[in-house]
Amino acid sequence: MEDIIYGKNPIIEALEAGHEINKMLLLEGSRDRNLQKIIEAARSKKILLQFVERKMLDKIAEGENHQGVIAYISPYEYYEVDALIQIARDKGEPPFLIICDEITDPHNLGSIIRTANAVGAHGVIIPKRRSAAINQTVVKTSCGAVEYVPVARVTNITQTIKALQKEGVWIVGTDMGAPVYHEANLTGSIGIVVGNEGDGISRLVKESCDFMISLPMMGAVSSLNASVACGVVMYEVVRQRNINGK
Amino acid sequence: MEDIIYGKNPIIEALEAGHEINKMLLLEGSRDRNLQKIIEAARSKKILLQFVERKMLDKIAEGENHQGVIAYISPYEYYEVDALIQIARDKGEPPFLIICDEITDPHNLGSIIRTANAVGAHGVIIPKRRSAAINQTVVKTSCGAVEYVPVARVTNITQTIKALQKEGVWIVGTDMGAPVYHEANLTGSIGIVVGNEGDGISRLVKESCDFMISLPMMGAVSSLNASVACGVVMYEVVRQRNINGK
Repeated sequence: MEDIIYGKNPIIEALEAGHEINKMLLLEGSRDRNLQKIIEAARSKKILLQFVERKMLDKIAEGENHQGVIAYISPYEYYEVDALIQIARDKGEPPFLIICDEITDPHNLGSIIRTANAVGAHGVIIPKRRSAAINQTVVKTSCGAVEYVPVARVTNITQTIKALQKEGVWIVGTDMGAPVYHEANLTGSIGIVVGNEGDGISRLVKESCDFMISLPMMGAVSSLNASVACGVVMYEVVRQRNINGK
Repeated sequence: MEDIIYGKNPIIEALEAGHEINKMLLLEGSRDRNLQKIIEAARSKKILLQFVERKMLDKIAEGENHQGVIAYISPYEYYEVDALIQIARDKGEPPFLIICDEITDPHNLGSIIRTANAVGAHGVIIPKRRSAAINQTVVKTSCGAVEYVPVARVTNITQTIKALQKEGVWIVGTDMGAPVYHEANLTGSIGIVVGNEGDGISRLVKESCDFMISLPMMGAVSSLNASVACGVVMYEVVRQRNINGK
């Protein structure tokens, strides 16, 4: 099983991030300078190159704008949840995890992974069903952070939450009417649950959270973009850890 | 000059927000229940309705998914910056403004406006050039917040900043290496500058800021999504105002 990525920028990013590329197809006879740079970079990494006609690229990219280059990459290898905990333990840090409860928009998932990297979180957990998976849009929106933030994919989010709780991780969700987020104690081992864009956190997942917090909503809209809300809570964790000298 | 919006949800939102709709085109013979609800709401508002064939809707929506309904609306009427200040004064609140320095992605602009509404900001300022304008994508991504957050469009951001400073508004930008955001005083009259997605805040705008702050970046990525970064700073303003009892 191989995934494909296409387009000059995504492939330049994958090359720079050291992502394993198995083979690259390039438009034959092209004089595009950026394609030339990609060829040079690929040759220096000894990636197999194949020069083909435009119609072959068109067919493989299924009509998407490939800009003359397609790369075959190994599909994303998801981590186990245990591995995420171990990464935190190895760093001597209290686990800091993001649990995405059915985030379906790949732009949101990518943006959450990007912020998770920025705040030094140890991993992101997504469910197998009803969730965006790691695809090219997620990689692109994450600005390459997918290469640095381990992502685990689980069958059942509530069971994963229970397992994390046994490891001493406090699980916090957001809910309207809950105490305001900056008054809650977010230091220590923590897993932040982000709900679905339309429906929020599902009832069963909400019931398994240790405590709930809310973001003040002072206007007419009743919710924030999922990646913005999650970003605000993630940075509140950073703020509280900084203040507490950890 | 008229703009069009299409699709059931965007049109229901526009109807609920009391947006002025000049005319509505509907798919003739449709039994869709939500379309019936739209028809009822439009009739009670005495909006001109016209029932047409699918191919006419397809043509007007230029191939986008119109779901059987298209509305002609008056184009967005931008506010003057003075009006934004006056709104804050009328509420007896210190002005709280968001200044977008060349945000080009309409999804980001919409998300920023949505968060601006949630935190009770008094307005958003965008430049006329090199910026996303208020269009249907912005309206949709803002979840209708565009109806509640006044947006001003200005010729020159640095001149607007100087005018705001004369009104006693402190202008804060984000920059790598600046003092950490939660240690800065963000209470009082404030304008938060958000930089372009790729290039950040332009040099001239940066030089006109009163002070700079930074968000800790502890991972491999060097920046956050613009609407996430702006959201974190906006909520820090809320947190500091709450703590200070204002």
